[in-house]
Amino acid sequence: MEKKDIANWFQNLQKEICQGLEKVDGLGRFIEDIWKRPGGGGGKTRTIVNGAAIEKGGVNFSEVYGKTPQKLLDTLELVNTNFYATGVSIVLHPSSPMVPIIHMNVRYFEMSPSSSDNSGTWWFGGGIDLTPHYIDLEDARFFHQELKNVCDQHHPSYYNEFKKWADDYFYLKHREETRGVGGIFFDRLANNHEFTKETRWGFIQDLGLAFLPIYSHLILNNRNKSFGDRQKNWQLIRRGRYAEFNLIWDKGTKFGLDTGGRTESILMSLPPQAEWHYNHQPEAGTPEYQTQDGLRKNINWIDGTSV
Amino acid sequence: MEKKDIANWFQNLQKEICQGLEKVDGLGRFIEDIWKRPGGGGGKTRTIVNGAAIEKGGVNFSEVYGKTPQKLLDTLELVNTNFYATGVSIVLHPSSPMVPIIHMNVRYFEMSPSSSDNSGTWWFGGGIDLTPHYIDLEDARFFHQELKNVCDQHHPSYYNEFKKWADDYFYLKHREETRGVGGIFFDRLANNHEFTKETRWGFIQDLGLAFLPIYSHLILNNRNKSFGDRQKNWQLIRRGRYAEFNLIWDKGTKFGLDTGGRTESILMSLPPQAEWHYNHQPEAGTPEYQTQDGLRKNINWIDGTSV
Repeated sequence: MEKKDIANWFQNLQKEICQGLEKVDGLGRFIEDIWKRPGGGGGKTRTIVNGAAIEKGGVNFSEVYGKTPQKLLDTLELVNTNFYATGVSIVLHPSSPMVPIIHMNVRYFEMSPSSSDNSGTWWFGGGIDLTPHYIDLEDARFFHQELKNVCDQHHPSYYNEFKKWADDYFYLKHREETRGVGGIFFDRLANNHEFTKETRWGFIQDLGLAFLPIYSHLILNNRNKSFGDRQKNWQLIRRGRYAEFNLIWDKGTKFGLDTGGRTESILMSLPPQAEWHYNHQPEAGTPEYQTQDGLRKNINWIDGTSV
Repeated sequence: MEKKDIANWFQNLQKEICQGLEKVDGLGRFIEDIWKRPGGGGGKTRTIVNGAAIEKGGVNFSEVYGKTPQKLLDTLELVNTNFYATGVSIVLHPSSPMVPIIHMNVRYFEMSPSSSDNSGTWWFGGGIDLTPHYIDLEDARFFHQELKNVCDQHHPSYYNEFKKWADDYFYLKHREETRGVGGIFFDRLANNHEFTKETRWGFIQDLGLAFLPIYSHLILNNRNKSFGDRQKNWQLIRRGRYAEFNLIWDKGTKFGLDTGGRTESILMSLPPQAEWHYNHQPEAGTPEYQTQDGLRKNINWIDGTSV
């Protein structure tokens, strides 16, 4: 398939996810900003605020191309190429601290010596991860099982490999804690002796389609749970950690800001509010403590064991 | 003078600034955490919360030494050295949006082939900058004039050079805005044909001593100004930008987190709360708009002209 087909499919995925989320939310409506990138391409940023379940979120589509930014050439050790990138990025911050934050990104990337040349390289990348304010073991199991189901349809090694990659990627090194219960992460999925472009793309599509049912379930399962000031305060602290991850460690954010991406589209991932308290430590034995304690790599959330 | 004398002087500066701030605040009291660095040295982190004027802040002293972290060796293109660093770092977030946020750092750094060898290089670095939630031209003029007075006592080129350096350093590239009205910033101040270690140190001391009277004036001048929800909301947005700068751009924060510094001492600089609203734009003609519009490099705050 052509890159244009991929971009069209992603654009349709954005539409379906927004419609589905509006239905589940019941109140919030997405608004759309269409933007152009000076060097080529652009995107549609769709944001939602003050829904019944979603307090702030974005479902972004972009298709950008042109001369490859110097920073990226340096990173990839390439010279003088054109690039093409298209994808969907999602971050949703729920109003209730009992509902987890979710993130997904699926993207396609191409590099070629010139814009008319199709001899270049291409790859897919992406990931999805869940950040509960309070870890619910059954939700974590459900989330990982659903991702494993998608992965297993495409390759027996996908889930284990990409789950580990997510543990390493969604990690706040300076806190020695994971962002949440992880998920899957992958990059540079190209063709080789095992995969064609079509089979890689099939995986990306299935993952994209899995997003809405997974998060709908997690909203519906948790939105009616009661909470009070204590849970809201904890949510604000966890949102502070979310902001820390995105601003310090997230390579996508860093790359976007470094290469002149649209700041407001990139930073739509930030929480509506956040708090920082000097040296805050949850009291031993509390649900907050249990959550903090569960923010570790190498937990098998499906069978509940630590690897 | 010996490094030990410098460290002692910094430690005393921390004490005097904390005492002075408690007096001006009238309610808040600093609490102290003493910490050790596994590789050598440690520090005293003093934090204050919920004062009458200061909502959250820290005045930190540290004296760390040992084998130079690899990241720093890479940056400085050196091999196999020992380092010694001591300094005072301050960030104060006032509760009132009418009082500006302030930051100061003064530090001394030494690199030597071994810990017993005094033949190595040394330098001073630091800076001070002001981040008003609402720019007050008279306050900005006062702040810069006070800094210029300190600079002018030590070298006629200091103020202009270090003021420009601050404009470039305290800059949110992804927003194309400065963090506030700037101040002064400098690094690698060593000896040369114009300066001795003593004259450099004299400048650092005078700057350190200027902090308390400057910020005391700015608190006293503004703490009784009335404000409402509108000003508090704007403060939360400006605090979000402050968090963005510290987590994305601040080299000191990045370096500290990368090299295993004490996270809670480094991130004491973060605001107590922050908010992010997608694509927030202040309405033309409002005080918020005027402030946003004033967050630019190359403004001469003393005579009120743009350079």
